[in-house]
Amino acid sequence: MAKPVKRNVIMMVSDGFGPASETFARQYHSWKEGSPVNSIVFPLDKILVGQSRTQSSSSLITDSAAGATAFACGIKTFNGAIAVNPDKIPCGTVLESAKIHRHMKTGMVVKSRITHATPAAFSAHIGWRDWENAIAEQQLGYSPLGRTVDLMFGGGLCQFKSNKTEGSCRQDDKDLVQQAKFDFDWDTKTTRKEFDQLDENAKLPLLGLFANQHMNYAIDNDPSIEPSLDEMTEKALSILKKSSQNSKHGFFLMVEGSRIDMAGHINDPMAMYHEILEYQQTIKAVMKFIDQNPDTILISTSDHETGGLTVGRQVTKGYPRYEWDPEPLSRVKNSSEVLSWMWAKAIQDETDTKEYLLDTIIGQGLGLTDVSKLELARLWSWKNSRTDIEFFAIMLSDLVSRRAQIGWTTMGHTAVDVNLYAYGHQAELLRGSYENTDIGSFIVDYLKLDLDDITKRLLDLKALRS
Amino acid sequence: MAKPVKRNVIMMVSDGFGPASETFARQYHSWKEGSPVNSIVFPLDKILVGQSRTQSSSSLITDSAAGATAFACGIKTFNGAIAVNPDKIPCGTVLESAKIHRHMKTGMVVKSRITHATPAAFSAHIGWRDWENAIAEQQLGYSPLGRTVDLMFGGGLCQFKSNKTEGSCRQDDKDLVQQAKFDFDWDTKTTRKEFDQLDENAKLPLLGLFANQHMNYAIDNDPSIEPSLDEMTEKALSILKKSSQNSKHGFFLMVEGSRIDMAGHINDPMAMYHEILEYQQTIKAVMKFIDQNPDTILISTSDHETGGLTVGRQVTKGYPRYEWDPEPLSRVKNSSEVLSWMWAKAIQDETDTKEYLLDTIIGQGLGLTDVSKLELARLWSWKNSRTDIEFFAIMLSDLVSRRAQIGWTTMGHTAVDVNLYAYGHQAELLRGSYENTDIGSFIVDYLKLDLDDITKRLLDLKALRS
Repeated sequence: MAKPVKRNVIMMVSDGFGPASETFARQYHSWKEGSPVNSIVFPLDKILVGQSRTQSSSSLITDSAAGATAFACGIKTFNGAIAVNPDKIPCGTVLESAKIHRHMKTGMVVKSRITHATPAAFSAHIGWRDWENAIAEQQLGYSPLGRTVDLMFGGGLCQFKSNKTEGSCRQDDKDLVQQAKFDFDWDTKTTRKEFDQLDENAKLPLLGLFANQHMNYAIDNDPSIEPSLDEMTEKALSILKKSSQNSKHGFFLMVEGSRIDMAGHINDPMAMYHEILEYQQTIKAVMKFIDQNPDTILISTSDHETGGLTVGRQVTKGYPRYEWDPEPLSRVKNSSEVLSWMWAKAIQDETDTKEYLLDTIIGQGLGLTDVSKLELARLWSWKNSRTDIEFFAIMLSDLVSRRAQIGWTTMGHTAVDVNLYAYGHQAELLRGSYENTDIGSFIVDYLKLDLDDITKRLLDLKALRS
Repeated sequence: MAKPVKRNVIMMVSDGFGPASETFARQYHSWKEGSPVNSIVFPLDKILVGQSRTQSSSSLITDSAAGATAFACGIKTFNGAIAVNPDKIPCGTVLESAKIHRHMKTGMVVKSRITHATPAAFSAHIGWRDWENAIAEQQLGYSPLGRTVDLMFGGGLCQFKSNKTEGSCRQDDKDLVQQAKFDFDWDTKTTRKEFDQLDENAKLPLLGLFANQHMNYAIDNDPSIEPSLDEMTEKALSILKKSSQNSKHGFFLMVEGSRIDMAGHINDPMAMYHEILEYQQTIKAVMKFIDQNPDTILISTSDHETGGLTVGRQVTKGYPRYEWDPEPLSRVKNSSEVLSWMWAKAIQDETDTKEYLLDTIIGQGLGLTDVSKLELARLWSWKNSRTDIEFFAIMLSDLVSRRAQIGWTTMGHTAVDVNLYAYGHQAELLRGSYENTDIGSFIVDYLKLDLDDITKRLLDLKALRS
């Protein structure tokens, strides 16, 4: 390996954000700001360099686990794989090599559970993404490599709490927060107040988990309860910068706009818009950081598109006009997810009246006063359909999307090439159309990493769960 | 205006081709060639430079006329406008200024009628795209500017034939082919044989119209009847090169993959795939030309996306798997348009039996042997529905798309930003995200054109139809 140069890498993943997501959010935002023709340009629009081709080794349509493994290990693998190859053999990640070979500070900031597929694929190795209990342990340092992450901000405290504690997601009674403090000296923060008290001198390793499960959608969040993605990212940058200031080594930070994807799964245009807006604010903050710290590169791309969003939908039987209407979207107050939870609670509490559905869920929540009898009957009948609550949420989303003429084709993912954005030092090297694995390889070259050596260390120790 | 430099511009428009169109065609092609994971890279993938934002002055979703006017005049205008501004005042185009100020040779090669929106917006000025009779006249030279086009290849002979002739689309009895020969010395070719006989020394102005209406879809075409887009483009390049060889001025050529859009309108994945493949072959030929003629720039982009194509579609009621299946597509033999015409003819001839529908249209044409009774009943009942034949075609397409899990959301257009590709001299200047109008402005700067002067000439003469 060549002599190291002090560099920082900020790898940002807009989970589930396709080309149409950017257009949709920009056009809505421009309309809202009264600028329909000369559309407002988002921070991402200023740094577009190309596209990433996303298919996995097992399907023409990837999931987030295989998608993130492509960035983390630079290899194509099967859907569900967390930094393991198609034979389920662990593969060294750029975060691990940055830590072990380059002695860089490492961090991850997300809006999902920190154990969710994308952050997991940078910091754990396991054959199936749902085994988040084990992922949590590896992320803290219970791994053949020891601890490789210095800072984690996000949600998912439930994966770190004993099953004797309320709200735990663990199968066992391990109290990972206490264990991690004892074994690796992790400092844990869980409240907005604690977050606000953190400054650039915060002690590492630092675990900030500000929600028991995923963090709130931006559209639903009370800022006094949970910090936003841009707030967490700015704080992480200041801490990582300070902690690496007197070192000849920089930092590697992975930031994920995790819930753009989740809004896509529920086909919820306004939950998606607010997640995208928060992501754009985060990009803006990172670009400002780079202007002040030029030995830094920002890479931003998506693992895949979610929902099959298209900005145009035929709602009439005849030949359609070429238009869509942002106005109905502007009346939406909450995510369909939160509204569906309210309805589920009403059912549980036996307060599930048609008035409540019509006035509170649809009227106040979605801002709709024109639902038809048929639409209402469909929502009402969900109670007897025995399908998951997300199918109720998707019906709510559809009421809004239909009126705005916004199209979706699936609750899952699609294969469309996603946009690639880059800014800062050597960003021009990423211009063009690439396989998603090329992005991992770029980071390897940029930081002169050695993933094969990490893979060897992972295998030599034979201590890995499979 | 600064001193001219000899340069060639090849402006290519992939009408209706969105980001998902490229992914879809590449993944299908890779599957067909037996390379599912390490997908084959198309010529366009090698020259991706950014994206174009497409909305028009009248809608968040543009049509082809406003989209082409953005490239031709560098202005946003209303849907339906052919090189006129929002007040319906003509705007000078890059083709016209290239001819008049730069003395360049000018050409257009398309697969639609040559009078269709995209070529029209470079070579005519009129308030509504459907007035193709008048567009045909202006294109030949019956315009305040006189003749500005040297070469036209495509379809649409019907617009140039007297209404006394079979298959004419004209309201009047003008024989434009004869008139144009007399007034402007246009040489007209209409057959494959005549096309084949053309060599680089072909006399200009040259009108090659090889179909009465739009040219055949590539999937349906008999190459002995109509030339392909790449054949027409290669021939146009050789003629334009030769005719400008001893001049200090180069040429401007507009090439349109016109029918990608039309396949999108019918939501027909295989008609679209074959149009895209032909477009890629054309791109490859143009790139080769540029390698041999380096003072040339290729710009390729779309006016808009058509169909709301997404590569992923939920066809089950539960949560979908992340996959789509190319196999059912591989059995399709014809476009849904041609198959629907066959069915319409059968109805006319009273040979419209269920056997014919099942065996010939669905079995041979679409390659499907598993249609359900419900699907068959829906097709059968179209006869009594009094809807246009394109609604029958779209039902045929849907049989195939559903089995492949390919999603569409409209028979119209969508707003998604489209990909921008460039190759050759100064192509790097087009990197990034642009308004579609910036592409027109780029050509103006590149060729040092003066569109305002053309606009003045158009208005001073007051000879324009409105």
